[in-house]
Amino acid sequence: MSSESDTDTEDEIARERLIELASDFYDQFAEGEVPTMEIPTRTKSNIVFDEDKDVWVYGDRTSTRSANSVRGAQKLLKAIYTIEFLADQLEQGRSSTLRELYYLSESWDEERAQFNDQDESNQLVEDLEIVSKVTREDFHMRPEESGATIMGPLYLREQTRRGEREIHCQKDVGEGGYQIPNNPDTIEFLDNDADFVLCVETGGMRDRLVENGFDEEHNVIIVHLKGQPARATRRITKRLHDDLDLPVVVFCDGDPWSYRIYASVAYGSIKSAHLSEYLATPEAEYIGIQPADIVEYDLPTDPLSDSDINALESELDDPRFQDDYWREQIELQLDIGKKAEQQALASRGLDFVTETYLPERLGEMGVL
Amino acid sequence: MSSESDTDTEDEIARERLIELASDFYDQFAEGEVPTMEIPTRTKSNIVFDEDKDVWVYGDRTSTRSANSVRGAQKLLKAIYTIEFLADQLEQGRSSTLRELYYLSESWDEERAQFNDQDESNQLVEDLEIVSKVTREDFHMRPEESGATIMGPLYLREQTRRGEREIHCQKDVGEGGYQIPNNPDTIEFLDNDADFVLCVETGGMRDRLVENGFDEEHNVIIVHLKGQPARATRRITKRLHDDLDLPVVVFCDGDPWSYRIYASVAYGSIKSAHLSEYLATPEAEYIGIQPADIVEYDLPTDPLSDSDINALESELDDPRFQDDYWREQIELQLDIGKKAEQQALASRGLDFVTETYLPERLGEMGVL
Repeated sequence: MSSESDTDTEDEIARERLIELASDFYDQFAEGEVPTMEIPTRTKSNIVFDEDKDVWVYGDRTSTRSANSVRGAQKLLKAIYTIEFLADQLEQGRSSTLRELYYLSESWDEERAQFNDQDESNQLVEDLEIVSKVTREDFHMRPEESGATIMGPLYLREQTRRGEREIHCQKDVGEGGYQIPNNPDTIEFLDNDADFVLCVETGGMRDRLVENGFDEEHNVIIVHLKGQPARATRRITKRLHDDLDLPVVVFCDGDPWSYRIYASVAYGSIKSAHLSEYLATPEAEYIGIQPADIVEYDLPTDPLSDSDINALESELDDPRFQDDYWREQIELQLDIGKKAEQQALASRGLDFVTETYLPERLGEMGVL
Repeated sequence: MSSESDTDTEDEIARERLIELASDFYDQFAEGEVPTMEIPTRTKSNIVFDEDKDVWVYGDRTSTRSANSVRGAQKLLKAIYTIEFLADQLEQGRSSTLRELYYLSESWDEERAQFNDQDESNQLVEDLEIVSKVTREDFHMRPEESGATIMGPLYLREQTRRGEREIHCQKDVGEGGYQIPNNPDTIEFLDNDADFVLCVETGGMRDRLVENGFDEEHNVIIVHLKGQPARATRRITKRLHDDLDLPVVVFCDGDPWSYRIYASVAYGSIKSAHLSEYLATPEAEYIGIQPADIVEYDLPTDPLSDSDINALESELDDPRFQDDYWREQIELQLDIGKKAEQQALASRGLDFVTETYLPERLGEMGVL
């Protein structure tokens, strides 16, 4: 959203959707029905591939939260108190964390509406996201930690509570880069000289690329993923792709856990399949470290552990890895029994990654 | 350091110290002695309190690395190769991570100088830090992750590889704040309107303070610790205290692990006692959550786990907690058997922390 009034409109829409939910309960009561709330079943078996949008979404199976038991009624009571809190928060232009919501419930007059533990409040907010089709960010619920950064030829405007800030993500930031805010939809992209976006798993490699001036030489926006990326990081990656029409490539360690990092950027996760359209960048491509690179570049490796092997085997069944490329790479890795970190490229010298490896791979992929 | 030429001088000093070490080995060889390297013994029993500097440092006991065995000789060989690598790196104005050093050793012609695992190279760099009295940062060794941020009335100049950047840590940054670089000694403080520094453990609380405008209202520089703080975060905290003469207070969860976070800011750790003068801020005070606050403010709590109890008991023996204040708080906590998170203050409303709790505590401590 690009201006304060847009933000206000977004807030108003989110607030209305929440109040509609509460009003559904009201109508059910008024008609003498037992109030219920229907939500998609969130299991692996209820995930389907949406061919149009190229992302994984929930299928048709739903679960019903009903007030026909004391436990069910309490769940709906908690939902109503939470809706009231969120609606007030939006009206006041404030925000809070999931953890604050949990603690804040202790101040509610109705003791039975208070949460028993943080899992319960987290789960409820996810349910409300799914049912209302409004993201947590648009409820003004902040994550506990975000913290990833951007460095590259991108000029943006961030709408903060203290006014607008216009920041160039190379010229106006220190070596640490631009800190992605909790809700990146407060950012408007003003201008850029970028040819593509490179998402990097580890801080050590991100710093290597920045030190070697890779972002300047190749006009690339470097997004630090910091391991499993936060929602804010995935969201801004998607927006860089969609709004600026930039190719996105993902650069991780060469092990099954890193392939999941790639998959969460490209396809989202089962836990957040309701957010795939908002968070996932299905066009994102995996640059490496590939098992084939371990062989081709003779990288220093560690042997696969039992849990690595289990994870690779489970990826062979994961719908997100069902194509020839991934089957070939995963089978090769199981065959050689080895994994390699991205920084293992340093065994060929500190410039090998920026002068040889990435240019070669980007050339193969048609990005450079 | 304030300008490029200062940086060059620092680099030259670091380089000379390293070369002196190598030259000591050379002299030992020349005189027909078996080369040795003496380093302080790094155990809890060899930590002593330096009354002058108010920090914990290594005592007089030393261990000797000698070339009188194959294993010892290999260690010194690795040290010499590493010294050469670091000296070249400094000469070229480059930097690298500990992990890159490990992998890079695979490219060394002498196979016996290559590291067997990352623990070995990490340990060697720490040894070199201690013996040369040059910090890792001044060797241009970067950490894998830094990532903490600053928000507050502070105007600074960061010397980056791409030139100087002048940044105001409220007006020139987004809501995420200013990202602390890996080596904060590249920062010069230009101007500030700050009355004190508040270090905050969790992202959720840091965001709460920023949303509530606490940094603006009370002229405070908010440093996000992100759990156990990185060296860069501790270093900049110390510099804010020493260079700007600002009081430092530390705001964490109310549990034994958080007391250790405070202790690492204030006193450093056994592992890095050689760096206490560089990293520790012994004047830093603990604001809370105190066990006394759990009682006074009737905060929502969790019961202490067995490992919490063990950690508290071990803190009663920890030299860093040997005073009446900590003994009283730790004994109170063992007595009530409870712990509380900082965000538990939200049970009294989202503004309670900024309107009541922090002003009250800061008043008691004489900071406000």
